Amino acid sequence: MCAKASAPTLPKGVRDFGVEQMAKREYIFSIIEKVFKKYGFSAIQTPAMENLSVLTGKYGDEGDQLIFKILNSGDFLSDVKKNKDKFEPIETADAKKMLPFVSEKALRYDLTVPFARYVVMNRNDITLPFKRYQIQPVWRADRPQKGRYREFYQCDADVVGTHSLLCEAEIVLMIQEVFNSLGISNFEIQINNRKILSGLAQVVGAAGNEAAICTAIDKLDKIGLEGVEAELLERGITQEAVKKLLPIVQTNGSNEHKIETLKQLFTHCEAGMAGVNELEALLEYINKMGAIVPQCTLNIGLARGLSYYTGAIFEVKALDVQMGSVCGGGRYDNLAGLFGWEGISGVGISFGVDRIFDVMNELQLFPEQASESVKVLLINFSKESENYCLPMLRTLRKYGIAAEMYYQPDKLKKQFSYADAKKIPFILVAGDNEIKEGVWALKNMQTGEQTKHTTEQIIKLLL
Amino acid sequence: MCAKASAPTLPKGVRDFGVEQMAKREYIFSIIEKVFKKYGFSAIQTPAMENLSVLTGKYGDEGDQLIFKILNSGDFLSDVKKNKDKFEPIETADAKKMLPFVSEKALRYDLTVPFARYVVMNRNDITLPFKRYQIQPVWRADRPQKGRYREFYQCDADVVGTHSLLCEAEIVLMIQEVFNSLGISNFEIQINNRKILSGLAQVVGAAGNEAAICTAIDKLDKIGLEGVEAELLERGITQEAVKKLLPIVQTNGSNEHKIETLKQLFTHCEAGMAGVNELEALLEYINKMGAIVPQCTLNIGLARGLSYYTGAIFEVKALDVQMGSVCGGGRYDNLAGLFGWEGISGVGISFGVDRIFDVMNELQLFPEQASESVKVLLINFSKESENYCLPMLRTLRKYGIAAEMYYQPDKLKKQFSYADAKKIPFILVAGDNEIKEGVWALKNMQTGEQTKHTTEQIIKLLL
Repeated sequence: MCAKASAPTLPKGVRDFGVEQMAKREYIFSIIEKVFKKYGFSAIQTPAMENLSVLTGKYGDEGDQLIFKILNSGDFLSDVKKNKDKFEPIETADAKKMLPFVSEKALRYDLTVPFARYVVMNRNDITLPFKRYQIQPVWRADRPQKGRYREFYQCDADVVGTHSLLCEAEIVLMIQEVFNSLGISNFEIQINNRKILSGLAQVVGAAGNEAAICTAIDKLDKIGLEGVEAELLERGITQEAVKKLLPIVQTNGSNEHKIETLKQLFTHCEAGMAGVNELEALLEYINKMGAIVPQCTLNIGLARGLSYYTGAIFEVKALDVQMGSVCGGGRYDNLAGLFGWEGISGVGISFGVDRIFDVMNELQLFPEQASESVKVLLINFSKESENYCLPMLRTLRKYGIAAEMYYQPDKLKKQFSYADAKKIPFILVAGDNEIKEGVWALKNMQTGEQTKHTTEQIIKLLL
Repeated sequence: MCAKASAPTLPKGVRDFGVEQMAKREYIFSIIEKVFKKYGFSAIQTPAMENLSVLTGKYGDEGDQLIFKILNSGDFLSDVKKNKDKFEPIETADAKKMLPFVSEKALRYDLTVPFARYVVMNRNDITLPFKRYQIQPVWRADRPQKGRYREFYQCDADVVGTHSLLCEAEIVLMIQEVFNSLGISNFEIQINNRKILSGLAQVVGAAGNEAAICTAIDKLDKIGLEGVEAELLERGITQEAVKKLLPIVQTNGSNEHKIETLKQLFTHCEAGMAGVNELEALLEYINKMGAIVPQCTLNIGLARGLSYYTGAIFEVKALDVQMGSVCGGGRYDNLAGLFGWEGISGVGISFGVDRIFDVMNELQLFPEQASESVKVLLINFSKESENYCLPMLRTLRKYGIAAEMYYQPDKLKKQFSYADAKKIPFILVAGDNEIKEGVWALKNMQTGEQTKHTTEQIIKLLL
C-alpha cells in the first residue's frame, strides 16, 4: 500500500452520516419500515448499477443529463478507437455521441424504474398483486444546494397488479400512521386525480395539453398565479382556456364543495367524472377504515409534474415548518409497459427521509433514546478492576444490555467524557470497597445520583 | 416519458434481492447489528461515491484497476479537449492517462478506506476510542464468478484510537455470538499475529521480505505446500529460508504447543516474541470473558494478504460446508496515516454476508419466520364482506399485527394462492354466517384447521 498523506475531501453534494445523525435516520427508517410491513409490504433491493439502456429515456432529456454514468472498466477507450473516424479530431468530438462507447452502466436515478424492471424480469415468479417496499439511496448529478443532494435515500412502497382503490386508501392510512408515529401531527395530505386534470383540460378547451397544464399549475406555490398564467400561455394554452382554468384550480372550501363544483363541470366529460368518482370512492374508503379525514384535502391544482401518474395523486406537507413536500406518490397504469409488460397498474408512495429529518430536527421531535447507543459504561481503574468487571460485562451482554468497559485505565475524567460523548446514561464503578463487598456503584449520568447495588439489582435496573 | 419496450437485463455480476432473499438477508444483518450494538459499536454511513484521489493507491495496482470510476457529468470531454495534444490521435491515446481528465469520482471499493477518511475528516468531533460499525455495499470491477459479485455488502466493525487487546478479545466474542445466534455452531476462529510473521521472516533469514512470505503462505489452502514453496522461491526467498519456514508454518497441535514452539524460536527475536506475548494476552482475555476457547485456533500460516495488518489477524471458517472464510479482520496500526493522521491504531472485523447466506442456506438454518412477512390475510368475498372486514383490518394493525385484506373479490383459489406465495400463516374468513353472528373463521394454513372466534379471541391468538 502506497501511503500518500493528503487532506481528504468528499465529492460535492454527498454526505457522511455520523453516529448521532445515523441513529436519528435509523429511527425514521425503522418507523416507516414497521408501518410498511404491518400493511403487508415486503422489502426487495435492486443493485446500484443498472444498464444505461434501462435508465435512458425514462426521465426526460433533463433527467438523462443527471444520470451518473459509470466508465467502462479496463481500457475504456477501446471502443472509441474502433470507431475513431467518428471522434477525430478530439476537438470536435461530441461527448453525447461518445457516451455509449465509453459507458454502458449507470447509477440508479430513482427506485421506480428499477422496480418496473424488476417486476418485468421476474414476472413468472411474483404473485400479483405484488406489494414491495424499497429503502435505498439514489444518485442525481444535480447542482448541489441546501436540501438537495447528489446521493439521497428514497423510501418507496408500491402495489402493482390491481386497480383496487383500497390500495390508495391504505396509502393514506400508512401516511397518517408514519407521521403520527414520528410525532409530526400537524400535516396535510393533498389528494388529486390525474383524470380530473385531464377532464379540466377538456372542459376548458385544451384537450391533449394536460402535460403542459400539469407542469405549469404544479408551480403555483413557487411562482404564484401570474407566473402560472404566463407559463400556461407560453406553453401554448389559449388565453380563453387559461381564464377558465385558473379559477377552477383555485376552488376553495371543503372537499364536498370542491367535488360538487367538479361534478357540475364534468356533466358532459367522462374522463373528468371518472376522476371525481374515484376520488369519492377513495374518501369513502379512508373514512370506513378509520383514517383522520380532515387531514385529507382535495387540491385540484396538485399535479406532481411526473407524467406517468394516471389516477390518484398524493402529496404531504408538514404544516409547522417551511418545507417542500415530505412525501408524494400516485397511481400509474402502465409503468411495467416501459419494459414490455402492458396493463399492469400500480400505485405507490415515496417518503422523503432527508426532509422528514429536517422537519423533526427543527421541531425537536427526536426522542432522547434515538441517539442513545450504549446503556452502561464500566470504568477501568486498574488490572484488578478489570478482572472484577469483565465477568459483569459478559453478564450484562448476556441479558441483552448494550454495555462496554473502557479499554484502558485512563484518567477518570477522560472516561467520563467518553460516556458523555456517547450519551451513555449509566456508569458502573467498582473501587476497592465495592470489589471487597462484591457490589457495584451505579451512577446515573443525568441526575448525578450514585447508588450501591448487587449484580442482580444492577441487571434489573438496566433491563 | 418515451416508453421503449425492450426486454430489460441486469449488468453482469450484480443482483436483485427478491422478497424471500431479502428477508433472509435482513435476518443475518439484524443479528450482526444487534451484536455490534450490544458491544458498544455505533453505525455510521459514508457515501457510495468518493473522490478518486481518496481511493487510488490504497489497494495496490490490481485494486486500482478494479475500482469503478464515474464519468464526469455534463460534457465529460471538455477537459480532454483542453489537453488535446496529449490525446491526439485518439488511436494511440492511453486510457490510463486520460482517466483523470474524464473522471474524478469512483465507487467505494471497501468500507475501511472510507472509514479512515471519515476518521481523519472528523478528528475534531469524534471521541477516541471510536467504535463504529458500517453495513453498506461495495463495488469491484472483478470478473464475476460463482460467489464473486461486482456489488456486495460488507459488514464491518472497527475500534480506532486504542492499543488495548480487550478490543481483540471483544472481536472474538462478537464472532462467537454472531455465529452462535445464526445457528452456525461448528466454526473455527483462526488467529495469528503479524508480528509473529515478521519474527518468522527474521529467524529464517528473510527479514524485510514479510510481504512476499504473507502473500505466498496465504495460499496454502489453495495451491498446497509445493505451490507455496514454488511461489516463495519465485518471490526471491532463498531455498534455505523456505526450508526453515515451511515446517514452522505447519506446526500442528494445541495452541499451547504452538506457542511453546514459537517462544523457543523467538528467544532472540524481539518482534516475534512481542507477537507471541500479544497472542497469549489475547487468549487469556477471551478465557476470562467466557469465550469458547476451543473455537480459537492459532494458525501460524494465516496472513490474509492485506499488508496493512500490524498485529492480530483473524479469520473464521464454517466447518460443515466447503466455503472460503466467512469473516476476517485484524489490527492495523496506521490506517488513518493514509490521510495524514499518524499513530491511530485500530482493529476491525468484517462479516461476509453473501457467504454466510450460502452457508445458512446449505445447512437450512434459516428459521421459518425469517421468510414470513404478513401474519394474516382477510378474504375478500364481496362488498358486504369488505365492509365487515375493514374495521377488523384496522383493529389488527392497531395491535401491531401485520395484516392485509385481499384487494378484490377474486376467486377463493386465487386468494389462497396469494397467501401461499407470501407464506401467510393465517387466513380470516367471514362468510354470511360469520357476519350474522359477528364472529370470524380462522384458518391455520399449515394444519388446515379452521376455528370460529370473536374479534377479541382472534387478536389474542395472533398477537
